Amino acid sequence: MAATGTIFQHGTLGLLVPGLFDGTITAGALLKHGDTGIGTLAGLDGEVIIIDGHAYQAREDGQIREIAADETLPFASVHFEKPDISDQLQALSQADFETQVVRDYRLTNVFAAIRIDGHFKHIKTRVAPRQQPPYKTLVEATSTQPEFSGDDVDGTIVGYYAPHLFQGATVGGFHLHFLSADHQLGGHLLGFEIAKATLKVQHFADFHVHLPIDNEAYLQEQFDNQTIDHAINKAER
Amino acid sequence: MAATGTIFQHGTLGLLVPGLFDGTITAGALLKHGDTGIGTLAGLDGEVIIIDGHAYQAREDGQIREIAADETLPFASVHFEKPDISDQLQALSQADFETQVVRDYRLTNVFAAIRIDGHFKHIKTRVAPRQQPPYKTLVEATSTQPEFSGDDVDGTIVGYYAPHLFQGATVGGFHLHFLSADHQLGGHLLGFEIAKATLKVQHFADFHVHLPIDNEAYLQEQFDNQTIDHAINKAER
Repeated sequence: MAATGTIFQHGTLGLLVPGLFDGTITAGALLKHGDTGIGTLAGLDGEVIIIDGHAYQAREDGQIREIAADETLPFASVHFEKPDISDQLQALSQADFETQVVRDYRLTNVFAAIRIDGHFKHIKTRVAPRQQPPYKTLVEATSTQPEFSGDDVDGTIVGYYAPHLFQGATVGGFHLHFLSADHQLGGHLLGFEIAKATLKVQHFADFHVHLPIDNEAYLQEQFDNQTIDHAINKAER
Repeated sequence: MAATGTIFQHGTLGLLVPGLFDGTITAGALLKHGDTGIGTLAGLDGEVIIIDGHAYQAREDGQIREIAADETLPFASVHFEKPDISDQLQALSQADFETQVVRDYRLTNVFAAIRIDGHFKHIKTRVAPRQQPPYKTLVEATSTQPEFSGDDVDGTIVGYYAPHLFQGATVGGFHLHFLSADHQLGGHLLGFEIAKATLKVQHFADFHVHLPIDNEAYLQEQFDNQTIDHAINKAER
């Protein structure tokens, strides 16, 4: 299986679960590890979409803006884009897409980056609402959050497939964000239907996690794996 | 928290659980990523202890020998030794050691390498017995395995502490191997009592996993996280 590069992940999805929303890496430092990826800003402030070396924030008010180099993130995954698969997709539901991609490109136990550029019949996103300290848990913070949707949208889906063994460290399975071509619609992807699009898949043999071991709240937290698993399934799918 | 370097892990502990014991990295390639660490050989053939750039195998017959560069491993973790903590220990049980080290050096959510050189009042190890294909599961393969022990032994404990969130990818908590100074006793550490020893701890912010994505058995396996969790707790503690 062709595989190039490394997925670099700052933090764990698990640390968001009890509400460790402090920013512990700058966007500038993050982009040294990749030009494509996803994440969230300090305070769980929206959804981050990184495409072609530019990091964007989808905000809870529906606005999308580019992130400055000195803004910070508690969690993000990035890689340098170099897909080993390219394919044309047409009239495909999210469920069929996920089944086909896992099967055709043998993703089950492999980390992969997913990018889909094209025309979507339907897109539905949500955006995490900005939190203030003392932070609530991830499930509480995302229990009410704005959802956005559009029909006949041009744009880009970007994100990852991770082996389910890594649930907790990251999201096991698909974790996808969206940004429309006109920057009017974006966020964490809840649903989509592809009209006509180009799929790029990049397989990785290498997954690199960087932990915020100078963050006092991180060092002190008593994590519980089962709580994390349930919270990810509730808040990130 | 001072942190230097990266833990490089080839494979996952999880892949050993259903019996994926094929060697997928050579010892020579592994040692390019570190001079210190632990692992097992192809076929679950014994316990690997890597110290000062040399990789040793503790075999089920009790013999210890150096591993050649072309021998292969399904799973191993290595790092370049550069401890940020050094401490003198005296008259310490395993339980007290583990409690103190996690508390004093704040390991709970941090990857760390542990090395203890000195004199041990008691050492108890076990050594996984070499398997032949078709491979049994890890729990079956280790259900009967030789144990070794010694009193008043000079030697080295080497291994890792990993955050419990990474259980499955690796062993959550401590995973320690032992090699006596005279190379007469070694293996996966089941128990120890320190008489007088030097402890070195190296904290890591970075954990790098390399997956064997060209191994057909790995690609095809349907892993189950709960099975893996239980098997690690049974076979690796």
